[in-house]
Amino acid sequence: MESIITLTTDFGLKDAYSGAMKGAILSVNPQARITEITHLVPPGNILEGAFILRDACPFFPPGTIHVCVVDPGVGGSRRPILVEAGGYLFIGPDNGVFSVVTGGKALRVIELTNRKYFRTEVSNTFHGRDIFGPVAARLSLGAPQEEFGPEVQGMAGLDLPLPEKKEGRVTGQAIYIDSFGNIITNIEKADLAGKAIEVEIKGRTIKGLSNTYSSVASGSLLALISSSGHLEIAVNSGSAAAALGVAAGERVKVSSE
Amino acid sequence: MESIITLTTDFGLKDAYSGAMKGAILSVNPQARITEITHLVPPGNILEGAFILRDACPFFPPGTIHVCVVDPGVGGSRRPILVEAGGYLFIGPDNGVFSVVTGGKALRVIELTNRKYFRTEVSNTFHGRDIFGPVAARLSLGAPQEEFGPEVQGMAGLDLPLPEKKEGRVTGQAIYIDSFGNIITNIEKADLAGKAIEVEIKGRTIKGLSNTYSSVASGSLLALISSSGHLEIAVNSGSAAAALGVAAGERVKVSSE
Amino acid sequence: MESIITLTTDFGLKDAYSGAMKGAILSVNPQARITEITHLVPPGNILEGAFILRDACPFFPPGTIHVCVVDPGVGGSRRPILVEAGGYLFIGPDNGVFSVVTGGKALRVIELTNRKYFRTEVSNTFHGRDIFGPVAARLSLGAPQEEFGPEVQGMAGLDLPLPEKKEGRVTGQAIYIDSFGNIITNIEKADLAGKAIEVEIKGRTIKGLSNTYSSVASGSLLALISSSGHLEIAVNSGSAAAALGVAAGERVKVSSE
Repeated sequence: MESIITLTTDFGLKDAYSGAMKGAILSVNPQARITEITHLVPPGNILEGAFILRDACPFFPPGTIHVCVVDPGVGGSRRPILVEAGGYLFIGPDNGVFSVVTGGKALRVIELTNRKYFRTEVSNTFHGRDIFGPVAARLSLGAPQEEFGPEVQGMAGLDLPLPEKKEGRVTGQAIYIDSFGNIITNIEKADLAGKAIEVEIKGRTIKGLSNTYSSVASGSLLALISSSGHLEIAVNSGSAAAALGVAAGERVKVSSE
Repeated sequence: MESIITLTTDFGLKDAYSGAMKGAILSVNPQARITEITHLVPPGNILEGAFILRDACPFFPPGTIHVCVVDPGVGGSRRPILVEAGGYLFIGPDNGVFSVVTGGKALRVIELTNRKYFRTEVSNTFHGRDIFGPVAARLSLGAPQEEFGPEVQGMAGLDLPLPEKKEGRVTGQAIYIDSFGNIITNIEKADLAGKAIEVEIKGRTIKGLSNTYSSVASGSLLALISSSGHLEIAVNSGSAAAALGVAAGERVKVSSE
Repeated sequence: MESIITLTTDFGLKDAYSGAMKGAILSVNPQARITEITHLVPPGNILEGAFILRDACPFFPPGTIHVCVVDPGVGGSRRPILVEAGGYLFIGPDNGVFSVVTGGKALRVIELTNRKYFRTEVSNTFHGRDIFGPVAARLSLGAPQEEFGPEVQGMAGLDLPLPEKKEGRVTGQAIYIDSFGNIITNIEKADLAGKAIEVEIKGRTIKGLSNTYSSVASGSLLALISSSGHLEIAVNSGSAAAALGVAAGERVKVSSE
């Protein structure tokens, strides 16, 4: 069966790790259509992995199996899980990474305990290859969910920074810097009720929302709604993060009228 | 249908962007054979994107759909186009990127206007995901070209630096540095008529063309014809760009007898 | 036929090279399932390419065709070969890279001489695209091995650093630093007979083997058996290579009782 299996990991691109995991999947289902979202989540950064999965996930067809392995606790007490939510299946360690894309709500959460679906030898340090990849491949072949283990209640969450609203002002923060240097914030489109908004970040003020990068002069700062629906601060043909010296965590204020 | 769709973009490898675009393609055609050329075109560098597409394109089978999105003007006035040329289909913004691989000559250029083939919601900043990916996928399913929009005349061009020939000398420039540090120039094999050539770059002189990197001592400078048919300056087992301190734009002179 | 073809190269990810090679494969067999292990082997580093191939290879299904092109001698006297060993087929330059994954033992080694299976034009500098990719694709379509060229004796080897054992002590070295900064050594699990081991590296001593990264405090040094079965020195949620200032070649001593 030609199911789509996506991979989101912090394995990097230079080592054998992503290759070994893909091999382990193809050893179970040679027809699996493996689609890599990224292997460049910063090592152990569960929050960035969660944001990337959230932003890529909804563009895949229903039934896609999303495997996400950012797993600093590998071999420890966190549970390996399978989550069904929003028409997708999610597989990986239960460390909060799936709480963002699902909003913490799932049709079903199953703890992966049936070793029949793992590789025969399971290492302590590489469950992407030995557990999560093979389980995804078995699932893509049509194995029923209930065979993988018992249903459990809920999944781990993450402490997400949320924006605060007070008297027409929203205060949020930069949560993600993309490879263009665009600054993505935790302020959503719906948080911006008024029209004449003003954005403050690191002592700079931006008046109004632009529609496109190229609507301001090259090298100029602008604010717009990102392709994921968040307030984004950018520089036309440049890096806003470099220009402003901003990293994730920087405070962003928006006033509207 | 299992058509091949290639991707050449400046989306980078760490974010959700390439994954979201692949998902949008697979949502339309789950059988599409997506093949990534690169996502590491320097941000907004249309010329480098054009060189990479030109060097990879001809090795794909006829009928391949090449999607190229280096799109600093996204959401602005540049047209989204579909180009048929040389047995291939090209899809992306009309910013000159296709003029290099096609030599500016096409069997047909179509402006993509039929929103029926776009995602329902089209953002202002991510047409790779919302327009170009879905259009490529529809095309791979056999939708007729004329349904995507009206035929238009010509495509945008690029100011390509061309070599100058005078009295047995050719003066060109470095146009691309590859990841080995090899310096690729805009001087083609056909420009080098004489046999006893001498190459000058940054005060260094190289006598004659080598056939292979290993035909000179390790660490030594050489000139040869690149795998894309251009004059290339290299260092055996090293980086010529680093050794000479050369970036794209550096002048290169060749004398032949 | 939908055979799996893996790629392990030093081509990098920013240029047209990996795309051109994939295109050359798909031009011969549009159904080939190309799976990339890595294109980020350090340029010309045959030993690292060999380690990566060894660590990823065994997780692929039998019959997989592994193409490995780290080829500083391209166009020179090294032979292009096809190796059958351990249920897999290996294709690439005979520069020692296959001696690690196969232990130097093969069912068959064939020198690739039949130009019928190469691209019509073969460059001097890009045999991945012009020879190895197309040969892999032909093989995936079922072409018999003997048609590719004559059987030859043996393959090139590599000078592998081996650990020394003396009086309950094993002295080895760091042979690979992964993208997490984990230090992988050439000491294997079987070399560690005693239980109460003590590991010395760069003036630091680690007592005992851990099972998981998270079994020590965040930021602490630990030793464990890597997912490839080697002694590994790591830092929980950090980079051991950075913390200790260690590169490949660093001496590692283990005493056991």
